[in-house]
This record gives sequence, C-alpha cells and structure tokens, in this order.
Amino acid sequence: MQDRLNPGERIDDLIINDYKIIQSIDAFRFSLDAILLAHFAYVRNQGMAVDLGTGTGVIAILLAARNIKSVIGIEIDSALADMASRSVTLNGLEETVSIINADMRILQGILPTGKYDLVVSNPPYRRSGTGKTSLNDKILNARHEVAVSLLEVITAAKYLLKYRGRFALIHLPERLTEILYQMHIQGIEPKRIRNVHSYLDRKACLVMVEGILGGKPGLEIMAPLVIYQQDGIYNNEIQKYYKSN
Amino acid sequence: MQDRLNPGERIDDLIINDYKIIQSIDAFRFSLDAILLAHFAYVRNQGMAVDLGTGTGVIAILLAARNIKSVIGIEIDSALADMASRSVTLNGLEETVSIINADMRILQGILPTGKYDLVVSNPPYRRSGTGKTSLNDKILNARHEVAVSLLEVITAAKYLLKYRGRFALIHLPERLTEILYQMHIQGIEPKRIRNVHSYLDRKACLVMVEGILGGKPGLEIMAPLVIYQQDGIYNNEIQKYYKSN
Repeated sequence: MQDRLNPGERIDDLIINDYKIIQSIDAFRFSLDAILLAHFAYVRNQGMAVDLGTGTGVIAILLAARNIKSVIGIEIDSALADMASRSVTLNGLEETVSIINADMRILQGILPTGKYDLVVSNPPYRRSGTGKTSLNDKILNARHEVAVSLLEVITAAKYLLKYRGRFALIHLPERLTEILYQMHIQGIEPKRIRNVHSYLDRKACLVMVEGILGGKPGLEIMAPLVIYQQDGIYNNEIQKYYKSN
Repeated sequence: MQDRLNPGERIDDLIINDYKIIQSIDAFRFSLDAILLAHFAYVRNQGMAVDLGTGTGVIAILLAARNIKSVIGIEIDSALADMASRSVTLNGLEETVSIINADMRILQGILPTGKYDLVVSNPPYRRSGTGKTSLNDKILNARHEVAVSLLEVITAAKYLLKYRGRFALIHLPERLTEILYQMHIQGIEPKRIRNVHSYLDRKACLVMVEGILGGKPGLEIMAPLVIYQQDGIYNNEIQKYYKSN
C-alpha cells in the first residue's frame, strides 16, 4: 500500500466498509461532515451520482458503500484529484467511482446534462475574503470559496441533475438563507433540512439541505442530528453509521 | 368578570402573570404557539412592539409580561379586535397594550413608519386554497391566508420597524424557504431560527424566525426547542416559561 503514497501523504481508515483514504499529512483532512452528508443523501437504487469538489474523494468513496451504480468525483486541484484516484484504486472501487480533474463551472463537454440522480457537495464553507484564512493552499481551496461560489455549485448541480433528481449539500447554518434562496431561484426546490448540533443544547454547527430539481415548494425539517451524548460519546445514530455499512 | 363576556365566549387562564384571555367557545383558541413566540422574540428594554394579526390578543398580552414600553395589536376582524380589547381591560393592561381594528395591508395614517423596535406575528399557516379548510369563519381567517399573505405580513413589518428593529414570526417548517426568501428580499435579514419539535426524534412542527431590518446576512440556528419529554410531560424549558413570568 505504501508505494501508492506520495511524499507527505498517509493512509487513514474510513472505518466504514474497510475503506481507506489517502490524505496529506499537513493539509486537508476529511471530517465527520463527509460521513454525515453521505448518510443524509437519498441514494436511488442503482442511481448515478456526482460529488462536486470531491477533494480527497471521501464522499464519493463513502457513497460507493451504498446501493449505487456509479459515482463521479469532480476536483479542480490536480494533485488532490490524483490523490483521490489513488484512494479509489486502493479500495478496488474503479468500477463504481471515478475521479475527474475538472472545473465544475465548465462541465459542458466533460459530463452530460440532465443525466444524474444525485449530486452531492461539501462546498467551501466561507465566502472568499471572509473568515479565517490559512496559509495552506489546499486548505484554502477546500475551506474558502477561492475556487467556486455557492451559486456556481448549485448551477453545476442543476446542469447535471435529471428532472426530479436530488441535490444534497452540507454547509454552515449562517449560509442557510442564501442556500435556500439560490436553490429556489435555480429550480432545485429545498425539500428537506437536517440541522447538526454537537450537543442537544448547542446551536447548530452544520446544516444539511436536500433539494429536488423541479420539486414543488414545501420543506420538511427533520429531527435534529445530535452528535454527542452528554458524556461526549457519539450518539447512537452516529455509531450506527459505522456499524451498518 | 363575566359581564365583560359576549354570548358564546369564555375566559381562560394564560397561567403566566395571572393573565386571562377571552376566547370564543366554539372558534379559535390560543395555543402554545403564542407562548413560544412571545418567549422567542427579543424584547428590547422599554421597546415598542406591534403584533400583526393579534387575534384574541394573546401574544400582545404575553409580551406585556416582559420589560416592554408598549404593544399594539392589529386585528382585521372587528369582533376579534373587540374581544382582544376586553381581554386587555380584564388584565388592567390598558396603559401598555392597545388593540387596533385595522388591515395590516393599509397602515399608512394608522401607525407611523420606522418607529417600532419589534414586530411579531403568528400569521395564518396555509396558503389560501390549500390544506384543510374549516366552516368556521374565524378559524378560516386565523388559519388560512384569507386575509393576508406571508408577503403582506413581512411588508407590514418592514413599514413599522425602525432601522435595526426585529421581526419575529412563528410558522410551519414547510414555508421556511419562502419566509427566508421574502424576508431577505424585503431587507429584513433572517438572523436567528429555532425549530420546535414535539419530541426529539420527530420532525419539526413549527419554526420561529427572527430577522433584523438592515441586518447583514448570517444566520444562527439555535438549539432545538423540544416540547415534550419522553413521558409526555413538558420539557423543563417550557415549564420555565410558566414559572419565570
């Protein structure tokens, strides 16, 4: 396994399905976000999915653990795309998961429009120029909107989805108005929200939103997803994510 | 007290502050919604508030229990407005709470613009022509958008609020996209959301949203408000609403 690693990389265990993930030692690391989104997304039986801004490929690989026909991960950073491809190979998932080094703002000629059942994204969390910035370029790309804006992510999803296809993303609660607004404007009607709270008595740290292309207005706010019990142990639902796959 | 009642009315105890409320025996009854909204709203010390579509006046009266200078309840139905006025008198709150029988869509000449710190509303829950309808006109008015649309409520709030004033409403989760969208468009930026769940493992039954006129984008999703403990008893937070006032 080690000969698949470039200098400065390491292999981490995704715990789910014995999948592994290659990551930079000093850069972006996958977090619980990816696991939450991969479980939140509604996966149609033998559906076709795209992960926009796949990074290390963690969400694309986790989706492969579900009953899915194919997942394509789009990543603009060529080094990250290469790393993600090696993780796909490492897990023997070449038939299900493919990584494309491309800019999600220019998908014409790369992927067909109106074909996919599901588009997921864990996009950069803060607007370019706001919030804390980092000296590390890869973190900068992944955590700030250097590469793409929220609207560009939603526009890419709209291009890819078939009619009635679903778009699921995980983001910061502070952006919820903009997320719902832009999805509605683009015709991906928000249908399902789930808030993620570290503890029950804390404000939400993340929000997951699912929209349907061509869906009618009308939203459901699901039971909150509370990560930790009072004693700091993962809640039963999170523990099941690891056991059921 | 009884001589203040018209035929078909009764007096109910609001439990909070020994306040009473006059209600029709066979029509609209106040619910927990009013108590939740009256606690959710941020009340500026000695601020001035307006309750749009006050109905029986329950929210206006509950706000009087907080440190507020004045509350005005606007009600389009003259019989309900009269009933609400009698409830104000019944509680000896004439100096703090006033009820105006008016159409919130035509506030010019009735109330000044840009003067109020807080506008609250528990507007009709369903769009006109959708959902269950009722044969009872008062219920119809209160529960369906016969009288006003969501946009008209928000427009009235915008007219009344001073710069940086707050608008708080309680509504159905299914309308959240539209609420955030319309508030944003009208310049009342959504800043705070609290979802209400009957039980922790159920989807939200209500959502409360607070916006600030002229506020910057950026939303906080508060800890969920769970009404019942597993045994069906009110949660501590709801119990405190009754004890702390």
